[in-house]
Amino acid sequence: MQKVKMHGLVGDLWPNIRLMQMTGHWLLEYHEETGGMVRLMRMAFCWFTTLIVFTQFAFITCFLILETYDADQMAAATITTLFFLHSVTKFMYFALRSKYFYRTLSAWNQMNSHPLFAESNARHRATALARMRKLLMIIGSGTIFSVLAWTTVTFLDDPHRQITDPENANETITVEKPMLMVDAWYPWDAKYGMTYFMSFIYQLYWLFISLSHANLLDILFCSFVLFACEQLKHLKEILQPLMELSAALDSVVPNSGDLFRASSTASNIPLIGNDGNEFDVRGIYSNQRDFSGFQPGIAALPSNGGGVGPNGLTKKQELMVRSAIKYWVERHKHVVKFVTSIGDCYGSALLLHMLTSTVTLTLLAYQATKIEGVDVYASTVIGYLVYTLGQVFVFCIHGNELIEESSSVMEAAYSCHWYDGSEEAKTFVQIVCQQCQKSLTVSGAKFFTVSLDLFASVLGAVVTYFMVLVQLK
Amino acid sequence: MQKVKMHGLVGDLWPNIRLMQMTGHWLLEYHEETGGMVRLMRMAFCWFTTLIVFTQFAFITCFLILETYDADQMAAATITTLFFLHSVTKFMYFALRSKYFYRTLSAWNQMNSHPLFAESNARHRATALARMRKLLMIIGSGTIFSVLAWTTVTFLDDPHRQITDPENANETITVEKPMLMVDAWYPWDAKYGMTYFMSFIYQLYWLFISLSHANLLDILFCSFVLFACEQLKHLKEILQPLMELSAALDSVVPNSGDLFRASSTASNIPLIGNDGNEFDVRGIYSNQRDFSGFQPGIAALPSNGGGVGPNGLTKKQELMVRSAIKYWVERHKHVVKFVTSIGDCYGSALLLHMLTSTVTLTLLAYQATKIEGVDVYASTVIGYLVYTLGQVFVFCIHGNELIEESSSVMEAAYSCHWYDGSEEAKTFVQIVCQQCQKSLTVSGAKFFTVSLDLFASVLGAVVTYFMVLVQLK
Amino acid sequence: MQKVKMHGLVGDLWPNIRLMQMTGHWLLEYHEETGGMVRLMRMAFCWFTTLIVFTQFAFITCFLILETYDADQMAAATITTLFFLHSVTKFMYFALRSKYFYRTLSAWNQMNSHPLFAESNARHRATALARMRKLLMIIGSGTIFSVLAWTTVTFLDDPHRQITDPENANETITVEKPMLMVDAWYPWDAKYGMTYFMSFIYQLYWLFISLSHANLLDILFCSFVLFACEQLKHLKEILQPLMELSAALDSVVPNSGDLFRASSTASNIPLIGNDGNEFDVRGIYSNQRDFSGFQPGIAALPSNGGGVGPNGLTKKQELMVRSAIKYWVERHKHVVKFVTSIGDCYGSALLLHMLTSTVTLTLLAYQATKIEGVDVYASTVIGYLVYTLGQVFVFCIHGNELIEESSSVMEAAYSCHWYDGSEEAKTFVQIVCQQCQKSLTVSGAKFFTVSLDLFASVLGAVVTYFMVLVQLK
Amino acid sequence: MQKVKMHGLVGDLWPNIRLMQMTGHWLLEYHEETGGMVRLMRMAFCWFTTLIVFTQFAFITCFLILETYDADQMAAATITTLFFLHSVTKFMYFALRSKYFYRTLSAWNQMNSHPLFAESNARHRATALARMRKLLMIIGSGTIFSVLAWTTVTFLDDPHRQITDPENANETITVEKPMLMVDAWYPWDAKYGMTYFMSFIYQLYWLFISLSHANLLDILFCSFVLFACEQLKHLKEILQPLMELSAALDSVVPNSGDLFRASSTASNIPLIGNDGNEFDVRGIYSNQRDFSGFQPGIAALPSNGGGVGPNGLTKKQELMVRSAIKYWVERHKHVVKFVTSIGDCYGSALLLHMLTSTVTLTLLAYQATKIEGVDVYASTVIGYLVYTLGQVFVFCIHGNELIEESSSVMEAAYSCHWYDGSEEAKTFVQIVCQQCQKSLTVSGAKFFTVSLDLFASVLGAVVTYFMVLVQLK
Repeated sequence: MQKVKMHGLVGDLWPNIRLMQMTGHWLLEYHEETGGMVRLMRMAFCWFTTLIVFTQFAFITCFLILETYDADQMAAATITTLFFLHSVTKFMYFALRSKYFYRTLSAWNQMNSHPLFAESNARHRATALARMRKLLMIIGSGTIFSVLAWTTVTFLDDPHRQITDPENANETITVEKPMLMVDAWYPWDAKYGMTYFMSFIYQLYWLFISLSHANLLDILFCSFVLFACEQLKHLKEILQPLMELSAALDSVVPNSGDLFRASSTASNIPLIGNDGNEFDVRGIYSNQRDFSGFQPGIAALPSNGGGVGPNGLTKKQELMVRSAIKYWVERHKHVVKFVTSIGDCYGSALLLHMLTSTVTLTLLAYQATKIEGVDVYASTVIGYLVYTLGQVFVFCIHGNELIEESSSVMEAAYSCHWYDGSEEAKTFVQIVCQQCQKSLTVSGAKFFTVSLDLFASVLGAVVTYFMVLVQLK
Repeated sequence: MQKVKMHGLVGDLWPNIRLMQMTGHWLLEYHEETGGMVRLMRMAFCWFTTLIVFTQFAFITCFLILETYDADQMAAATITTLFFLHSVTKFMYFALRSKYFYRTLSAWNQMNSHPLFAESNARHRATALARMRKLLMIIGSGTIFSVLAWTTVTFLDDPHRQITDPENANETITVEKPMLMVDAWYPWDAKYGMTYFMSFIYQLYWLFISLSHANLLDILFCSFVLFACEQLKHLKEILQPLMELSAALDSVVPNSGDLFRASSTASNIPLIGNDGNEFDVRGIYSNQRDFSGFQPGIAALPSNGGGVGPNGLTKKQELMVRSAIKYWVERHKHVVKFVTSIGDCYGSALLLHMLTSTVTLTLLAYQATKIEGVDVYASTVIGYLVYTLGQVFVFCIHGNELIEESSSVMEAAYSCHWYDGSEEAKTFVQIVCQQCQKSLTVSGAKFFTVSLDLFASVLGAVVTYFMVLVQLK
Repeated sequence: MQKVKMHGLVGDLWPNIRLMQMTGHWLLEYHEETGGMVRLMRMAFCWFTTLIVFTQFAFITCFLILETYDADQMAAATITTLFFLHSVTKFMYFALRSKYFYRTLSAWNQMNSHPLFAESNARHRATALARMRKLLMIIGSGTIFSVLAWTTVTFLDDPHRQITDPENANETITVEKPMLMVDAWYPWDAKYGMTYFMSFIYQLYWLFISLSHANLLDILFCSFVLFACEQLKHLKEILQPLMELSAALDSVVPNSGDLFRASSTASNIPLIGNDGNEFDVRGIYSNQRDFSGFQPGIAALPSNGGGVGPNGLTKKQELMVRSAIKYWVERHKHVVKFVTSIGDCYGSALLLHMLTSTVTLTLLAYQATKIEGVDVYASTVIGYLVYTLGQVFVFCIHGNELIEESSSVMEAAYSCHWYDGSEEAKTFVQIVCQQCQKSLTVSGAKFFTVSLDLFASVLGAVVTYFMVLVQLK
Repeated sequence: MQKVKMHGLVGDLWPNIRLMQMTGHWLLEYHEETGGMVRLMRMAFCWFTTLIVFTQFAFITCFLILETYDADQMAAATITTLFFLHSVTKFMYFALRSKYFYRTLSAWNQMNSHPLFAESNARHRATALARMRKLLMIIGSGTIFSVLAWTTVTFLDDPHRQITDPENANETITVEKPMLMVDAWYPWDAKYGMTYFMSFIYQLYWLFISLSHANLLDILFCSFVLFACEQLKHLKEILQPLMELSAALDSVVPNSGDLFRASSTASNIPLIGNDGNEFDVRGIYSNQRDFSGFQPGIAALPSNGGGVGPNGLTKKQELMVRSAIKYWVERHKHVVKFVTSIGDCYGSALLLHMLTSTVTLTLLAYQATKIEGVDVYASTVIGYLVYTLGQVFVFCIHGNELIEESSSVMEAAYSCHWYDGSEEAKTFVQIVCQQCQKSLTVSGAKFFTVSLDLFASVLGAVVTYFMVLVQLK
């Protein structure tokens, strides 16, 4: 179907992208090249989704302002509002910053491999693909289960609500409430008849796409991070053969510098500025066709060497070693850039996510102190708690994996047999070690880094603010 | 007008310096060389400003001590006093330590550039200038808006105040208060007539210069930091061409050491001690006239090479590479010294700022719990909150940019194609990487570093102390 | 007796392993090669122990749920339950992950030494053995003393308990309780007669093996860490002679690379992946038989040199230096891997330990505020406190030693006379310094590292949660 | 007088040592070589001091246990007890661990200097001496002032005390208390007459020596740290001339290795273990007499070179460069060892100091909330507060200076013109940079490092525990 764009990271994330398009995310790229009419319909669908998302969110906010009479109800309505604020901010965030996402997605489109390390590269890419799919399956199932559970719980609840009498503050009156998933204020009567049924359908659809919007973006983030982790594993794995290859380079050959400088100048490498993170890696490996006649794998080296004269062997071998180092460094730099671009995509969204989650969790901790038994209220509170903690945890565990993988590159560089390597290879190991002491992180608008420490900090903050809340009331 | 001193950092900060002189800061340098009479008048103006600032601050302090009767009023008066304590400390601080500021301002007076990198240098300096001007515009407008809003709010307020009856603690009496911006005790009757009008004019003028004093010093700080950041960007940008140039240096030429040692000894470079941070960089680039005949830009290299014999080319080329490395290291060291001198200027002022802001914010958080609706009280409290948070945030965001820029120098060094470079260039990359693992920071009297972490810490401390306050009362 | 397996780390830890087998841990390896019948009996014993441990723990949990009527009793029963939860989780943890433990134990089975450094290696191994035995003695005595003290305290206690009358919440009734170590609910009457006696014996046996299970695993952890520390000390000690040896290597010998590459390729070293931490170090030192004709010790060098021609001396000497560097790096990498495998063994168990201990200590702090004099209650609370703090402290102090030893490797590398060494040795020092800036740590499921900081954090968390608890009640 | 031992650090600290001997510290070394009788009398004086210190401390503890009836008095008595616990622990600590102090004091006895850097060394040593004397003067004056102020305040206080009636808890009775500096329980009647006068003299003497004991040990700590800081400054200062000298070494001279190895082997340098920090640096500089014919200073080089042949010049010059690097590294290592030995001396004492101070400050914060006006109570509380904070601050500010000086060695290494240096010098800069990324710290029993951060932490902990205290009461 989508042959042109199916390669690269876009291809790997194809199911995720398709689901985002189907739930109405503003992802207008990566479609078949059809006519303008279809494109218009797509935009109409996105606008329709936007309308539904914002209208219902407005109704919820209205309910919070207009129909909550005491602190408990206000807390409950605030939790609901904050919970869906996630989805709304993420939906908007993606719509407004979609070009950053397109850039990150296209980062691996021209991912040329080195013939010696092609096998390792392919293997790790396959692992990344498998892990992405598994994550999509798990979170997708979780989302569908959440929607079903929420709907079920709605019908188990008592359809009456005790509210403080607006005329007499000391008495409570009982009002009937509609059997809907989310308490909201509607301009129409949502309690009975056709309007109830329509409201129910409306909420069900909205609930499904809202959760999907947020979770699909979360999956995208985790998939990006997983891909980066697998690339780092690939880099760590090839350090050992690279060093063995490098041990073959005994003495410095005089004109080796010229050899490489030429290709370097020819490829017209852009200056490294802060403003533009181009992911064009085509030119960088431009000299790899020089050894395309080689069989991949280290074992091939002697056999090839047998065919050519001793001088030719040394030249080609040396070329291969240098190209291997070049490949390693450029791929590593590309991963670093890729992680930076993930940070550019998600930066503020992560900050908002963490702030919203912290406030939500604090309020939920407060609500949890009022659980008195196993009932609908308890299950709702626990459901919210598990869902919100789960969302934060998924981010943190993947961010932590990235930190661990990136900082273990140093250990891998140390673990390869560098003492056998040439002087050049030792310098390579030294510079790589220095660079990798600073681990790769995804930061939330520069305020924090996504890691398990953050998870612990969020829990700590929840306890502290919970104390303030208990103190004040 | 000020042709002699308009170059360097002083020229870039000219509007800021002019505004500081006009608001009565003790900035007696950077004037036209006029007679002693004018100089005397300038000193008189500074003394007059000092008098006004301190007298009014004394009146506010008197009000806090003499005319506050309960905890709430005391909290409000304390907030006001602390708010203006900022301005007073910064005004005094600048007056007493102006020589440190002069030294920092004159740091870039003899900023010789390298012919190869002159274009990049000029571009980044222009960017720095544009950003400084933009910041001045924004904070300047903010200051004027604050003064206007404050004055407006004054006339919207109820001109009566409820105070606890000094004779009967359980009753409150209502006293009339003057329609002035800031509650203060005056030896004259400031409620009616001419004395009221004079007091009003007095407070308006004082309010304007007080806020200006503090904000102009803040802008100066941020401008310094911005300048340092742009210099760091310049350094990062030129690493790539430097490395390409360096790749031309294949073998070690025997007498290269002598060549450079001579100029190094001749320039009579002072020993590096802790006591004197001289910013004399003239001597360091003394050998740059040797290649003044070159056309700037890398592209010029081969064409020049054609004109001279191959030996001559190597010599000149090598000279250029070494001078480029020398330029890079010396410029980087100069930026490090410059940041240290910013720290020397502001050190204790930052500590006082943060302490005062923390206490003010804590009291404001306490006051904010008493807001009951959208009225003058609420807008005042929120105004104070936004202003104080804004002040702290402006410091922190710029300090954080400095940290990020300086620590990303390592990544830039890693990202340039060092594997093609000569052995010398690789050593250069290694030492630069090592040095840049420690990021440049501006510290507040060694207690903290100005960064977004500090901002988060201040907010955290506010919450903690707010809890203590709520606990105690 | 167990001649085959008595060497390596298993031999050093033999008393510990024997005790673990005798207390019913699921440690089925390291037995004599007897028939299947004996093996079956061993499994039966393990199953029997499992049954006892879980049954009694179930009885305690039942008591917590069924027979606690007010907050104080619930707190006390919760402390008891959490206290034994330690033992149960560790017992289960070992049973389920015993293969990780086997792998860690077998890590030093083929620990070939270098002839030059054999003496230092043997000395440090002896020190490690002595320290392990001492630790086993201390903690073993502590465990036996705890069981005896617990039993004694039981008979000093008042055999009556005041509980809230289940029918009238304002009155308390006094019920008789059995004179048993641990309050538990039994399906039989445990107060009098034979069933009481049986229950007592049952609890005594269970108490002893429960504490032993937990403490033996703790000792095993500490022994592993001690062994790693001594290995690091060994590595630090040999840096100085290694550097002196290295100073003998003046000029680069052309074909030295080939010499080592051959053995490296022949030994077929596996790629370094994340999934498999093989501890096969046999192949790595395969070339050490080449210098087996040498006398150990540096003093032997000149005498050997006298026998052979000057060229032969240089070759052999060089071989020895290179093999020494190889030995050092490989041994260091092996220690790093060993520490990683300790982390793999204990990871989640440490996290659970710390969480359980934190909650237990918080509840104990709360209970401690109710101590009114020197009685059984006070001694019980203080006993629990000391025991729980002791458990955490033993972990932390050993984890901290590991951190200190590993980070001081850098200082040792700096302290050896590297300025006299060859270029190769200097590169070796540089890479070792870089690598050792990151200290070796054992992490608890990636959430924290075991160190004295953790101990301080646990105490800090106890204070914070204690405050929340006091707040809420 | 004490000619033999007056050199080295002992000479610099002579006034301090003398004062310690005069106040009865167990400092039996560093006396004139007189007969056994005098030595016996010295020991008798130390025993007498020990008796006085412990007896009075016992009386204070008795007062805390026997004569405090309510929480406030208990808090006050606890503060007093903890305050003097400082002195007692430090007195005991020094008595028990005096051999560590002797070792640290003798660390700089054989401090051979390098002819080129002798001037810088002497200058920095003089600075260190001046700063030590100044510190001694300041803290000495402070101690005497404290004793006088304390005595004065005693006579201003109301000689009656209100205590809770032991028979009727709701009433208070007034008892007369003796006019003594410190409330203590005495077996004799200390209120009137001769026994009062004796008690007063006893307390005055005890107060003076107690404060002196603690403060003299603190001064000793600070003096050690100051000395280390000045040594680090010396090392930073000589980096620049060292690098200029090194730039003279262009090509590797073949037999340079042998030249230095010989002296290295001859000096019989001990292996670096953890157990013995010998401070014998005599052997290390044994080859410095080789260039004793040189005139110190760099300017002397060319003139010498003129006298000898070109080969001789190169040899001698090279020798000098290498010896300079050797001097630098060995001196730096010696400073590192010295700082470690300071840590060994003070380790647990610092931990106890910080714990005691934290508890004292918390109780004082609590007492401070009860100040109602400017009276004796207020001045006592504020006096205690200032004194205790001052003690902690003096430690922290000096520890912080050490951290700053040691971490700025890296910047100094970067700032010297390394790009002109030889390959050897660049490697030297790289290894020094790596090593100095880890700053030198004095740790309190491995739990914390003495720095301004610690000071902030102590204040933070005081606030937190103060909250717990306010909460509980």
